[in-house]
Amino acid sequence: MRGKRWVYFFGAGRADGDASMREILGGKGANLHEMSRLGIPVPPGFTVCAQACVFYLSKGAWPEHLEEEVREHMVLLEDAMGRAFGDKQYPLLVSVRSGARVSMPGMMDTVLNLGLNDETVGGLARATGNPRFAFDSYRRLLQMFGEVVRGIPHQLFEHQLEEVKRLHGITQDTELSPVHLQEVIQRYKEVFAREGTSFPQGPWRQLKEAIEAVFQSWDNQRARTYRRIHGIPDDWGTAVNVQAMVFGNMGDDSGTGVTFTRNPATGERGLFGEFLPNAQGEDVVAGIRTPMPISGLREWMPKVYQELCDLGDLLERHYRDMQDIEFTIEKGSLYVLQTRSGKRTVRAAMRIAVEMVDEGIIDRATALLRVDPEQLRQILHPDIDPNAVYCLIARGLPASPGAASGKVVFSAKEAEEMASKGEKVILVRPETSPDDIGGMDAAQGILTARGGITSHAAVVARGMGKCCVVGCDALLINEVEGYILADGIRINRGDVITLNGSTGEVIQGEVPLVEAEPGPYFSRLMGWADSVRALQVRANVDTPENAALARRLGAEGIGLCRTEHMFFEKDRINVVREMILAETTQERKKAITQLLPMQREDFKGILRVMDGFPVTIRLLDPPLHEFLPKSPEEMEAFSRERGIPLEKVRQKVERLQEFNPMLGLRGCRLGILFPEIYRIQVRAIFEAACALAKEGVDVRPEVMVPLVAHVREMRILRDLIEREASDVMKEQGIKVEYLIGTMIELPRAALTADEIAQEADFFSFGTNDLTQTTLGISRDDAAKFLPQYVEMGIYSKDPFATLEEEGVGQLMEMGVIKGRSVRHNLKIGICGEHGGDPASIRLCHRIGLNYISCSPYRIPTARLAAAQARAREELSKVSGLNI
Amino acid sequence: MRGKRWVYFFGAGRADGDASMREILGGKGANLHEMSRLGIPVPPGFTVCAQACVFYLSKGAWPEHLEEEVREHMVLLEDAMGRAFGDKQYPLLVSVRSGARVSMPGMMDTVLNLGLNDETVGGLARATGNPRFAFDSYRRLLQMFGEVVRGIPHQLFEHQLEEVKRLHGITQDTELSPVHLQEVIQRYKEVFAREGTSFPQGPWRQLKEAIEAVFQSWDNQRARTYRRIHGIPDDWGTAVNVQAMVFGNMGDDSGTGVTFTRNPATGERGLFGEFLPNAQGEDVVAGIRTPMPISGLREWMPKVYQELCDLGDLLERHYRDMQDIEFTIEKGSLYVLQTRSGKRTVRAAMRIAVEMVDEGIIDRATALLRVDPEQLRQILHPDIDPNAVYCLIARGLPASPGAASGKVVFSAKEAEEMASKGEKVILVRPETSPDDIGGMDAAQGILTARGGITSHAAVVARGMGKCCVVGCDALLINEVEGYILADGIRINRGDVITLNGSTGEVIQGEVPLVEAEPGPYFSRLMGWADSVRALQVRANVDTPENAALARRLGAEGIGLCRTEHMFFEKDRINVVREMILAETTQERKKAITQLLPMQREDFKGILRVMDGFPVTIRLLDPPLHEFLPKSPEEMEAFSRERGIPLEKVRQKVERLQEFNPMLGLRGCRLGILFPEIYRIQVRAIFEAACALAKEGVDVRPEVMVPLVAHVREMRILRDLIEREASDVMKEQGIKVEYLIGTMIELPRAALTADEIAQEADFFSFGTNDLTQTTLGISRDDAAKFLPQYVEMGIYSKDPFATLEEEGVGQLMEMGVIKGRSVRHNLKIGICGEHGGDPASIRLCHRIGLNYISCSPYRIPTARLAAAQARAREELSKVSGLNI
Repeated sequence: MRGKRWVYFFGAGRADGDASMREILGGKGANLHEMSRLGIPVPPGFTVCAQACVFYLSKGAWPEHLEEEVREHMVLLEDAMGRAFGDKQYPLLVSVRSGARVSMPGMMDTVLNLGLNDETVGGLARATGNPRFAFDSYRRLLQMFGEVVRGIPHQLFEHQLEEVKRLHGITQDTELSPVHLQEVIQRYKEVFAREGTSFPQGPWRQLKEAIEAVFQSWDNQRARTYRRIHGIPDDWGTAVNVQAMVFGNMGDDSGTGVTFTRNPATGERGLFGEFLPNAQGEDVVAGIRTPMPISGLREWMPKVYQELCDLGDLLERHYRDMQDIEFTIEKGSLYVLQTRSGKRTVRAAMRIAVEMVDEGIIDRATALLRVDPEQLRQILHPDIDPNAVYCLIARGLPASPGAASGKVVFSAKEAEEMASKGEKVILVRPETSPDDIGGMDAAQGILTARGGITSHAAVVARGMGKCCVVGCDALLINEVEGYILADGIRINRGDVITLNGSTGEVIQGEVPLVEAEPGPYFSRLMGWADSVRALQVRANVDTPENAALARRLGAEGIGLCRTEHMFFEKDRINVVREMILAETTQERKKAITQLLPMQREDFKGILRVMDGFPVTIRLLDPPLHEFLPKSPEEMEAFSRERGIPLEKVRQKVERLQEFNPMLGLRGCRLGILFPEIYRIQVRAIFEAACALAKEGVDVRPEVMVPLVAHVREMRILRDLIEREASDVMKEQGIKVEYLIGTMIELPRAALTADEIAQEADFFSFGTNDLTQTTLGISRDDAAKFLPQYVEMGIYSKDPFATLEEEGVGQLMEMGVIKGRSVRHNLKIGICGEHGGDPASIRLCHRIGLNYISCSPYRIPTARLAAAQARAREELSKVSGLNI
Repeated sequence: MRGKRWVYFFGAGRADGDASMREILGGKGANLHEMSRLGIPVPPGFTVCAQACVFYLSKGAWPEHLEEEVREHMVLLEDAMGRAFGDKQYPLLVSVRSGARVSMPGMMDTVLNLGLNDETVGGLARATGNPRFAFDSYRRLLQMFGEVVRGIPHQLFEHQLEEVKRLHGITQDTELSPVHLQEVIQRYKEVFAREGTSFPQGPWRQLKEAIEAVFQSWDNQRARTYRRIHGIPDDWGTAVNVQAMVFGNMGDDSGTGVTFTRNPATGERGLFGEFLPNAQGEDVVAGIRTPMPISGLREWMPKVYQELCDLGDLLERHYRDMQDIEFTIEKGSLYVLQTRSGKRTVRAAMRIAVEMVDEGIIDRATALLRVDPEQLRQILHPDIDPNAVYCLIARGLPASPGAASGKVVFSAKEAEEMASKGEKVILVRPETSPDDIGGMDAAQGILTARGGITSHAAVVARGMGKCCVVGCDALLINEVEGYILADGIRINRGDVITLNGSTGEVIQGEVPLVEAEPGPYFSRLMGWADSVRALQVRANVDTPENAALARRLGAEGIGLCRTEHMFFEKDRINVVREMILAETTQERKKAITQLLPMQREDFKGILRVMDGFPVTIRLLDPPLHEFLPKSPEEMEAFSRERGIPLEKVRQKVERLQEFNPMLGLRGCRLGILFPEIYRIQVRAIFEAACALAKEGVDVRPEVMVPLVAHVREMRILRDLIEREASDVMKEQGIKVEYLIGTMIELPRAALTADEIAQEADFFSFGTNDLTQTTLGISRDDAAKFLPQYVEMGIYSKDPFATLEEEGVGQLMEMGVIKGRSVRHNLKIGICGEHGGDPASIRLCHRIGLNYISCSPYRIPTARLAAAQARAREELSKVSGLNI
């Protein structure tokens, strides 16, 4: 008895392994076995198990019997293919590929065309009638073998190829004749010789060395580093797949092609693809010949076409998804080289998902999981025509989605003037300030050179639902002379540019846009989503218009209404500045009292639109200096207009400067130090609510206190809010139900959530700030290192786009558990930007939040993602797997 | 049978209660009972229990039998005092005071002199022979009763008093004659009448109403808010103490005084105090008569003196501490009005503690607890002469302890020039920059108008062990014309000022200083401390000189050696700047290579001094722009000197600007992005270590990585450090033992300490940054609101001075538990500024750290505080109480 088994066969309708055997066969191997088992005609082959690799790496030799087993399985393979390995007439060629338990893309090595040598190459040339193909295959084998097995530098081979082309005046590889290729082969052999080695002519020697090279590649530096970063154990090893090579260029009964089982653009049912008779995959890629539509195959080889249709059905039903199939026909025999779930547009994804439910292939939960929530935004905003060709001149941060074209202007004033004449403009600024609001409103889109996703421009643009690109470092803006330089291209004042706020692209000239039109599959899918999800979905909006938009898109309340955005409006900003410049409480009260009627009207508008839904209003949050004029000109203008000495303005601006404003005098600290500000805001909320309640509107205000770190802050402010609310309600002679809650956006708040919950009716995680403080990363400064961090895999995703689970997620979970430990039915939500991110929504679902809140156009994404989170949970329960 | 008991008697050598009965008798009451039990002659009285208050507040009426019990106990009191309540000849007067379970200072009410009325006041006048006293007592009763019981505004009474004084041309209260006082009393009664009420003449009525008023004061707004903030339950209620009043102004056999049982300045044994015959406490306070030393009492009333001596012994042995005793002698009878532990200088504290151990009064653990570690610094630094009188002109933040005088200069250049002529100077700057280092070194002390405790000036000054006051907002510095304005006082260039870096005081002119001289009691006490403490004590130092100082003060290693401070030195800063301005890795390497020999010498110096002790060296931490020139002049000078285009300097400085530098590109992020910087630093450390090891020095370097948030950062940098260290050791042909560890200074690091510990040999809590991020407070900006926060009790202490326990402490404890869960013997320390703060050290001890680290002059404080933490723990175990 031999003991341990090292090699597993697959192909010809059977297989020794199956999809469950990844630990032994690796991921790729297990799938090849699975497909063979299904009777799908994959080119046959065998898998050397990962344990053989481990043995080899530790002992430096093959395990006993391994070679014997390989030889036995090669016989099976030869039988299946009807050709022999090393045969001089028509040799069986094989590939050798790595395949670890988990995918490690590009980390380990592959060798193709093994079995060719000086003799067999002639046989292949004759058998295929394509000497060029045969010698090119041999050349490639030499090069790959040289690099992978012998460690000869790539460039040495490339150099020889270039030499031959130069000598013969050839520019394209495809122009190389069989004679040229033989010259290249000769030169390649000399490279081997100069490196003190040679290319082994014996096919078995080739195969053995190739297998060993793949074993060894498990231990190369690149792979070790990858494993270290991704926490993959070093002792797993890699399996090795030896698979027959098949060729579609064997004559008129051969060919190659690619097909989808449904139309990937529209989702319509039926094969959709193309094929080339008498050709190889690389010919399709090289674009030498124009492939024909897959329907052509029906006439040319009706049997094979039918086989492909049946196979498509089989694969769709087995994998329960639309497939993207690569196939080769070798002498009338169909081989599937690969099948995978097909990429598709979001429109196709919706249709396929809905129709597959109708066809009984998948259930609704699975259908929900088939559409990428992230992509839903594409169909809600005008977007750049996917067929458009354009000149990209720069790339910034995608701050507010949608696309827009317009003439470049460099000041808010210009924007307003031109817009009033009916011109479409794009406002371009180094960064924006509250003085630019009018111009931002007048423009089609906003582009800034500085600032991050939470900069003034970004936040205001999102509030306006206006397309915006920020932090576009590459732009050199010359406001004085009126032009932009980007990558050598000069854009003058009045030239048209196009912005894509969903991708951050800045484009020269006008680009055709496509309008938003969700369609019927969208409605059915969203209906299913709403019936499945546990999380409620609210919106972050600051205006009645956006509140109405949010309701149309399915919002079930407002999770964050930022009162400060209201302060930036043109007729108010100077009153706000007076409030800030006030030297005494009395002066401050006077200024803020002027704001009262304005704020009251803001709140009335929003509360009225959200009749019957909760509206969470956050009291003033940002550092006061954000409202002050910044440039000398702005200061002067303000000083003149309000009759306040310039020196006083300047001093105050300077005194309010902070080293780290994110961690400075802001949030509830303002409310503690200047209670009159919060008091007036609370008064405005309740005056609005009472007035509407008298009209019969069902108002549900929720007052939210920002940046709480200590329960004592919350105690003081809860007292203040309760007292003011009760005063207003007494004055108005009507009572309205309301809640008082807090943001949880500092680590200490999460860590002491059990104390804070004693004073809060609800929590709302402010995950922007919670991420900044927990990770110690200023979002506005992160561009200097975070992209590299993500690239290096230190953080697997941008933590400001997707919640960082181990740290921030841990704090959130603590917050939920501790908060509910003292207040059983504490309502908990999230209102950071993560509230619209699908992966983050999954976390929110898992830790048991009640709602998520995001900007209006994110709402369908959030509804679907929330449904997916629930559906995954249900499916995991059923299957016992973590899906 | 009556059921519940409401009233408890104390006095005349017995008591119904004792110190353990705080829940019933309140804190004050329980102590009065305890003293009575000891036979100490406190004025007798009785306590109405807190439960009576609770009953009254809920039912609005006295409990059944309470009045009966009060009357019965008044009889006991009259017996004890030999006088009757309401007696017209010589009335017994009583006070009524609140006293809750925990002290709520100033929150509730008190009424004195109850029992006086139009009739009894005459009796008192006659009996005491002091009509002025009697009528003044009556006036006070009217006013207190009016305010406390009737709620009449204070000002109404004050106004009448002022009127009478004005009418009679009197300026001092003490000039009021009995006739004047009778006029005041008349007017006070009219105040009552105008308010629609009257002063009750019946003593019992007075008493009952006063007790009720104290009951009610439990529920006043002030007290409710206090309880809310401090988490005191509303349902405890307050006890009420009714106590006989005694008077020392009854004739020549009466008097009053205060005495310590030992000398509070030196600690010498024996009564030390003063007394006044025939006087009341308020006379002593008013300073009308000069009291005599306590020794005078020995001749005047030898029996009473002896009684007082015995009492002092008794109280010292009972309370096991030096006592501060207030006493009154009424007609030859000694009464103790109050005893408490006496305040003392740190020198006295050390002597008393050591001698009480020798006398067998206390054990060593208790002795250690008797000295305030905070005060130890006083005897290590020159300090302002405690007897000096001076003119304080401003107060800044105490950035680096000690005191110094010198002439004001406004630039580093001036400082160096004048110092070179032997002048003592104080360098005054708006804020300092690396260009000021030379001047800082030349100056006696540094004063800045801006910046916090972690500003450049503060950090560098502490490193230099130089007195420094920062963030002195009130200063208006005019550098150009060369003067300072502070609170209207003008200080010109060359005028002398004195700084107290321990308190933040800025003083006009020169003030006498006292030199540091610890003395013998210090040595004995520190010896005991070292034998008790569990925590090791290390130092934060950056130079060999400070390392040597730290060893002399008892440091057992270096817990934090900041490499960046070495970068600021005059001959290096421009090389550092070149490194930062480098556009390519190559340029950067070239610049930093110039730093290598300098850094190597730094490390050699420190490692040599710390022979046999661990030295933790932190790799570069601060944002790079901190090293760059700031003002246009500095930029120009640098550009000229190094031949780098000014525009390039300017651009780079601007590009490195950050919105929130605390959370920006700094710490290990620098090492990840620019590995060549860390590599050279590591090389310098190991070249130094190897060279010394060859000389036989026992080097123990510990390389510390700052600002780690994710284990993957640590993995990458650990690899880098290990590789470079091993290269150097191979080159040098010698091996040295070393550790690689990390700061835990971001919440995420603490939350994922179990992962990070896999790659770290030690942790060091960087509690400055951990506090900033956990609480979301920028230390440099906190001055705008944190003082108010502490004043309002939101944080009970400045969280940057004393570790905030619930949030930051919770994270630290998580870090310790998680870290040790994967690395059992993980060495854990703290190197934030908290490492020298006694309360923080107690926390560090509790959560099981191995060491604390602090600036050199803090070391004795830290040694003692560490010993106290351990001693408290031991005592708690023995007593079962939390001491």
